[in-house]
Amino acid sequence: MGDSRILVSEVGLRDGLQSIRSIMPTEAKIAWIRAEAAAGVREIEVGSFVPAKLLPQLADTDSLVRSARSLPGLTVAALVPNLHGAQAAIAAGAHKITLPCSVSETHSLRNLRRTHEQVIGEARAIGELIRASPKEKRPRFEGSLSTAFGCTIEGPIPDGRIAQLAERLMAAGCDEVGLADTSGYADPASVRRLIRLVRGVVGKAALNGIHLHNTRGLGLANALAALEEGITTFDSSLGGLGGCPFAPGASGNIVTEDLCFMLAAMGVDTGIDVAALLEVRKIVSAALPGEELYGFAAAAGLPLGFKEAAPSGSALRTGAG
Amino acid sequence: MGDSRILVSEVGLRDGLQSIRSIMPTEAKIAWIRAEAAAGVREIEVGSFVPAKLLPQLADTDSLVRSARSLPGLTVAALVPNLHGAQAAIAAGAHKITLPCSVSETHSLRNLRRTHEQVIGEARAIGELIRASPKEKRPRFEGSLSTAFGCTIEGPIPDGRIAQLAERLMAAGCDEVGLADTSGYADPASVRRLIRLVRGVVGKAALNGIHLHNTRGLGLANALAALEEGITTFDSSLGGLGGCPFAPGASGNIVTEDLCFMLAAMGVDTGIDVAALLEVRKIVSAALPGEELYGFAAAAGLPLGFKEAAPSGSALRTGAG
Repeated sequence: MGDSRILVSEVGLRDGLQSIRSIMPTEAKIAWIRAEAAAGVREIEVGSFVPAKLLPQLADTDSLVRSARSLPGLTVAALVPNLHGAQAAIAAGAHKITLPCSVSETHSLRNLRRTHEQVIGEARAIGELIRASPKEKRPRFEGSLSTAFGCTIEGPIPDGRIAQLAERLMAAGCDEVGLADTSGYADPASVRRLIRLVRGVVGKAALNGIHLHNTRGLGLANALAALEEGITTFDSSLGGLGGCPFAPGASGNIVTEDLCFMLAAMGVDTGIDVAALLEVRKIVSAALPGEELYGFAAAAGLPLGFKEAAPSGSALRTGAG
Repeated sequence: MGDSRILVSEVGLRDGLQSIRSIMPTEAKIAWIRAEAAAGVREIEVGSFVPAKLLPQLADTDSLVRSARSLPGLTVAALVPNLHGAQAAIAAGAHKITLPCSVSETHSLRNLRRTHEQVIGEARAIGELIRASPKEKRPRFEGSLSTAFGCTIEGPIPDGRIAQLAERLMAAGCDEVGLADTSGYADPASVRRLIRLVRGVVGKAALNGIHLHNTRGLGLANALAALEEGITTFDSSLGGLGGCPFAPGASGNIVTEDLCFMLAAMGVDTGIDVAALLEVRKIVSAALPGEELYGFAAAAGLPLGFKEAAPSGSALRTGAG
């Protein structure tokens, strides 16, 4: 399973859990992480290094990083809002850290209480910290361009601002940037357009990941467009946790099981056993009584005679329009 | 609006209403048809010419065809299970008739009570009837390859059988064939593969339409794949009527509003005003108390600053993999 090109990055423990009121016990989180890793998931964002008073749901991120590091082949990721968070993440041994940079400055001010200038300053400080760390302690450092497809306060964001922030994040020391549809505004055409735009300024190798929400039902269509553009890392959340996709204001991540079902049906190798993944829902449900899990594949079941198709490059479109 | 290349074909009045218990009053159906046509929908399947004792929900199909014909620019379509239905559809003045031909013979026997041989016989008789009709009375005749992506009884269907039935339907007198994912088994790769397979045997011009369900959440991703393969007619159902997409055994059609939102956001011209389309839900809701309507775009609302992008060929992918 180690050589699959397409990586599904589970973000339910961070983006999902931060959006609900219930606090999941640490042991249940560890059971969730272990079960997903056993199902073949190779990257999990286990939490966020933010003050516990802001997000008590994620207060155990430090111990989750330390515990998850023991799982062979698993990339343990964490969100960091600033240098302070990055210090904690590196001390805990995170393999990957993600700094969100909202391309909507209004959103950045409300969410991180920082201007673009200040966020870039944090990125620079984190980059320096990583370079000063011993080699075996250096995490991969991603700058995530959040609200890239539009902001619920500002609406559409000019391409120029997105391109400039992508460049500045790389110059500040990020290893890569990611595109995040924080508000569920993306469509397949804008996904293709922004991938090409950002790669045009930072290079193909510096944009690998996309973070999609299913707010307006286009999540998997957007994932398909990104896959065809050559994106290799897809964030998703087990059970679409943390957003009710069917209610006003919903903002749920794309559902890990549905994404993995689509990829498996297409013959795209993720190394993930979809049936085993569907079983992981039981752990999450049991630990979060009263919270609803979503997902079409789970509701309808796998098709009769479904087997994960043999991986094949031909699943991706190769011809012209 | 008449020159848009991409056609959204509303099937809620047929596929939606036949799947629920409530019987919608004829006047409400007419209001629905008129409101969708006013929103820019250019093709509506208004019902099915089946015996009223089998589907009392669709017993008024004859009068709906006659009424809808008065709407300028609207293609009035109807499903016909056999020659008898086709006679009635032609007498009423349907512009397009669709004969379902389940590529799973088990499904065909249970659904239409006919072997493949018998279905092809009906197609031939309908073809003769059309050729014998006065020119202004001749509907366009589509043979729909249902369960093409797999059957809940038989599982996957061999490519050879699908190709052969497509050829036989065309030879029997159909003007075109369509692909239908009756059981919600399709994925973007199988959509591309079957489109290429069928076009390989009947020619590109004889396969224009696809009928998708959102049973496993891949409906819009599948629509995107079909769009990129050059499919121009997409069946969908307002409010996903007739299937609960979030419950076991669900089989809802893709949601017209979500499909139209995706296409509009991408700059694909359908001639449909998405905001006006969302308003049509009120008519359907009011006429079907107790029936639930679905749809992500309706639940979340249109994005801030959303305008239907100027139609542009560049929304479709033109580069290679």
